[in-house]
Amino acid sequence: MLDPYTSLAMKSTNVTRIMNLVDQSERFKRQGHVGGVLWFTGLPASGKKTLAHLLETRLFNLGYQVIAFDSVWLRKGLTSDLKFCRLDRKENIRRAGELAALLSGSGLIVITAFISPYVEDRAVAREMNNNFHEIYLDVPIEICEARDQRNRYKRAHLGELTNFTGVSAPYEKPLNPNIVLEGSVLTKHECVDYLVDYVNHNFKSA
Amino acid sequence: MLDPYTSLAMKSTNVTRIMNLVDQSERFKRQGHVGGVLWFTGLPASGKKTLAHLLETRLFNLGYQVIAFDSVWLRKGLTSDLKFCRLDRKENIRRAGELAALLSGSGLIVITAFISPYVEDRAVAREMNNNFHEIYLDVPIEICEARDQRNRYKRAHLGELTNFTGVSAPYEKPLNPNIVLEGSVLTKHECVDYLVDYVNHNFKSA
Repeated sequence: MLDPYTSLAMKSTNVTRIMNLVDQSERFKRQGHVGGVLWFTGLPASGKKTLAHLLETRLFNLGYQVIAFDSVWLRKGLTSDLKFCRLDRKENIRRAGELAALLSGSGLIVITAFISPYVEDRAVAREMNNNFHEIYLDVPIEICEARDQRNRYKRAHLGELTNFTGVSAPYEKPLNPNIVLEGSVLTKHECVDYLVDYVNHNFKSA
Repeated sequence: MLDPYTSLAMKSTNVTRIMNLVDQSERFKRQGHVGGVLWFTGLPASGKKTLAHLLETRLFNLGYQVIAFDSVWLRKGLTSDLKFCRLDRKENIRRAGELAALLSGSGLIVITAFISPYVEDRAVAREMNNNFHEIYLDVPIEICEARDQRNRYKRAHLGELTNFTGVSAPYEKPLNPNIVLEGSVLTKHECVDYLVDYVNHNFKSA
């Protein structure tokens, strides 16, 4: 087993030389795939979270290093100080993007499920990440409303929820997404099959 | 290759059943070790970052899934909105703790290098994490000052830096750390050797 500590110590006593992170290409090489981000965006109840976790399980069982997280989860911890006004949404997505960049840089395939309704905010997340794939889950709003088990659309129409995307806050469609999934036409099985193929083709390490 | 998606779909059509994250024990089993946090604390220039990244490299080359991060790095991204007043320090450590919990939960050994001067803040980070190991790098302040290549102590004494730990802000020693390393007596080689042994003994998966 190579001991880089010893070998580096022999080469140089300059501390800054040995303070670098483990080389990213070494991480990618060992696990057989690169890190990257699969960023789901779409209306509330369009199925982002369901697909994200199905895809996570499928990729994990194929041997990928993978992690999925969503907005509800993030808001319980890392962004628990934020609300849903415009500025806080922006900051929520900024932190999600930073987190994705960290995880991706450490070799993981990161799957995120955020409404992320603003083109500008998603662009910030993309900017932070070297290998970023935007997946637009395109589902008509009527279908999202009908699917919404938590009755959020209904509550938003009644004014019980404010700043609710699709009702009282805008959703800006992606201008140039990497993938568009028509979630009202394809089954979730078909969506995940497609995405597994996509990852198999696009995340190989050198 | 097991296809949990198919098998789960056959068992049940209840969406909530298949929205769970990949089981943590499955992650740990596949990689041969559990996730956890090695949290360095100590005065500025006590050597936390150096040891953290040396340890990261050593563990990586032994086959561990490992990642190290420090305060300077975090403040460039995930906590770039924060300053050094008491409340912002608290929030900085809270987010570092949340991040460590996420990474650790996904199976990584997380090594963090933060001054994290307050007992209370470190307790919050510990609380968030199931497998948390506090490492106190115990180095006399005179030695830290002499080692400080960035002259921060000097600048703090001159009043050019405010809220500087050890000079104009307190450092509260750990009350009950998992490991104390006397960084002025042991070489960094000895410290890292000790920590590699510690990980080998304490992070085995079932």
